[in-house]
Amino acid sequence: MSIDFAGWCKQVQSDMEQVLDRHLPPPSQVPARLHEAMRYAALDGGKRVRPLLAFAAGELFDAPRDAIERAAAAVEMIHVYSLVHDDMPCMDDDDLRRGKPTVHRCYDEATALLVGDALQAQAFEVLAGGELEAARRVAMLAQLARAAGSLGMCGGQAIDLDSVGVALSLSELEQMHRLKTGALLQAAVMLGALAGKTLQPTEHAALAAYAKAIGLAFQVVDDILDATADSATLGKTAGKDAANNKPTYVSLLGLAESLALAEKLRQDAHEALLPFGRGAERLRELADLIVQRKT
Amino acid sequence: MSIDFAGWCKQVQSDMEQVLDRHLPPPSQVPARLHEAMRYAALDGGKRVRPLLAFAAGELFDAPRDAIERAAAAVEMIHVYSLVHDDMPCMDDDDLRRGKPTVHRCYDEATALLVGDALQAQAFEVLAGGELEAARRVAMLAQLARAAGSLGMCGGQAIDLDSVGVALSLSELEQMHRLKTGALLQAAVMLGALAGKTLQPTEHAALAAYAKAIGLAFQVVDDILDATADSATLGKTAGKDAANNKPTYVSLLGLAESLALAEKLRQDAHEALLPFGRGAERLRELADLIVQRKT
Repeated sequence: MSIDFAGWCKQVQSDMEQVLDRHLPPPSQVPARLHEAMRYAALDGGKRVRPLLAFAAGELFDAPRDAIERAAAAVEMIHVYSLVHDDMPCMDDDDLRRGKPTVHRCYDEATALLVGDALQAQAFEVLAGGELEAARRVAMLAQLARAAGSLGMCGGQAIDLDSVGVALSLSELEQMHRLKTGALLQAAVMLGALAGKTLQPTEHAALAAYAKAIGLAFQVVDDILDATADSATLGKTAGKDAANNKPTYVSLLGLAESLALAEKLRQDAHEALLPFGRGAERLRELADLIVQRKT
Repeated sequence: MSIDFAGWCKQVQSDMEQVLDRHLPPPSQVPARLHEAMRYAALDGGKRVRPLLAFAAGELFDAPRDAIERAAAAVEMIHVYSLVHDDMPCMDDDDLRRGKPTVHRCYDEATALLVGDALQAQAFEVLAGGELEAARRVAMLAQLARAAGSLGMCGGQAIDLDSVGVALSLSELEQMHRLKTGALLQAAVMLGALAGKTLQPTEHAALAAYAKAIGLAFQVVDDILDATADSATLGKTAGKDAANNKPTYVSLLGLAESLALAEKLRQDAHEALLPFGRGAERLRELADLIVQRKT
C-alpha cells in the first residue's frame, strides 16, 4: 500500500465529489432548481462510508476505475435520497443534516420529495451505464434494487416507523437495522466486488459475513453516538432516539454492553476477511473506522 | 388477430392484475403493512395504458411473454409510485385516486412516501430479473431509469411545480408534458419492443415518433377531460387544473382547437407506424383509444 489509510480515505472522499458531480445532471440543465437541489443533497457532505466500502472491495478485486466509481456513486445516491426523504416532516421532521439545513428546509417539501425520487432513478441510470460486461451490470442492478426496496432499506424504515413506542426484542431490533442500514452497506461491498469480478460462492459468503458484521456494528455505534455525542459534533440532531422513544442498542443493552458488542462485531468482520489475505487491508481498516469513529 | 381490440385490452388488463400480484412481495411478508399498502396502490385499478402499450409493442416483435410482463409491470410500478407521491399533501394533496382514497389517506403520509420509494426500487428489480439476454435487460433498465428521473418524469413534475400561476407558452407546456407523462409512455413502448429484439435505428425512430405523438395526445385529452368531465366519471378530482391556476392545452388553445390537436396527433401516430404494417394494429388501436377515451 503506497498511502496510509487516512490518506486513502481522504483521497476517495475527495474523488467522490468529482464522481458524483460527473454523474449528476449539471445545475444549468432544465429543470435547474431540481438539479440544484439534487446537488445540494448529494455533494459536499457525509463520511462517504458506502463509497469507501465500494472502493475497498473494488480494489481488492482489481476492478476498473470507472466501474468502481459507478458502484460507489449509485449506492451513495440511494443513501442520500433516503436521507432526504427520511428528514421530511412526515418522517423524522429534521432541520439539520450533515451540518446544513435539510433539503425540505432549504427548498420545500415538494422539491425534497422529487429530489429523492430523482436520485433513486439516477442511481440506477449510473449503474446501467459504463463498459462492464452486461451480465455483471445486471447483477449489480438487481442487488442494488433489492437492497433499496421493501425487503431492504425501505422495508427497514417501515419497520422503524411501526416500532416507535413499541418494546422491540434485541432480535427484532437487529432485523430492523439489517434491512434499514445493513442492506445498503452490504450492497456497497458487493457492488464494489462485482465491479471487479463475478464472485465465487465462497467469496460471496465471506464478503456477506463481513458486510453483515460491519452493518450491525455501524448501527450499534450510531446508537452509542446518538446517546453520548452532541449535535454539533454529529452534524445532525443528537439524542433523538431517546426523545422519540425509539428502541436502540443502548436502551436495550446499556452503554457498556453496546460498546462490547461493537468490538465483537469488529473482530467478526476481520475474521470474515481472512480468506482474502493482505489485499483486504482497506476493508479491515474500514471495519475499525466504523467502530472507532466519533461522528 | 383472433380477438377484437376491446377483448384484447380486457385480457391484458386482467392479466396485469396477476402479473403485478406475482411481482410484488406477498402481503404476509414483513413489513406486512408496507407490502399491503404497495398492493393497495398498484392492484385493482387504472386503465393500464402503459402495460397495454408494452404488450402491443412486445407482441409486434414476438417478445417472450415473461419479458413483456416484466416490462409492463416495471413501467406500471413507476407510474403508480408517481401517483402515490403526486397525491401527497406537499404535492397535489388529493383524496381520491382511481375511485379509492389515496394511499396517504388510507394509510398515512410516511407510509405513502415509503410505498412510492419501494415501488420504484421494485420496478428496477423486476426488470433486472428474467431470462432475456443481459445486454437487452441493461438497455431496458437504462431506458426506464432515464424516463423516470430528472430528465424524464421527475423533471416534468418539477417543471409542473414551478409553473403554477406562471404563463407558460405552448412550447413550454409541451416540454413539461413531454417529460412528465411522455417519457414514461415512450418507455412503455420502447421496453415492450426491446423485450422482443434489439431495435434498428429506423425502428427506434419510428416507435419514438409514435410514442411522442400518443404521449402528447394523452395529455391534451387529459386536459380536455379535466375541463369537461366530472369527478365520478374520472375517478379523481376533476377541474383541478383550472382551480389550481395551472396552464393546460384547453386554457391555452381553447376546447375546439385542443380537440383538433388531439385528432392530428392520432393521425401522426398512425403515420409513424406505417413501416410496421399490419403487425402494428394494436398500437394503432391504442392511439385511437388514447384520443377517444372518456375517462
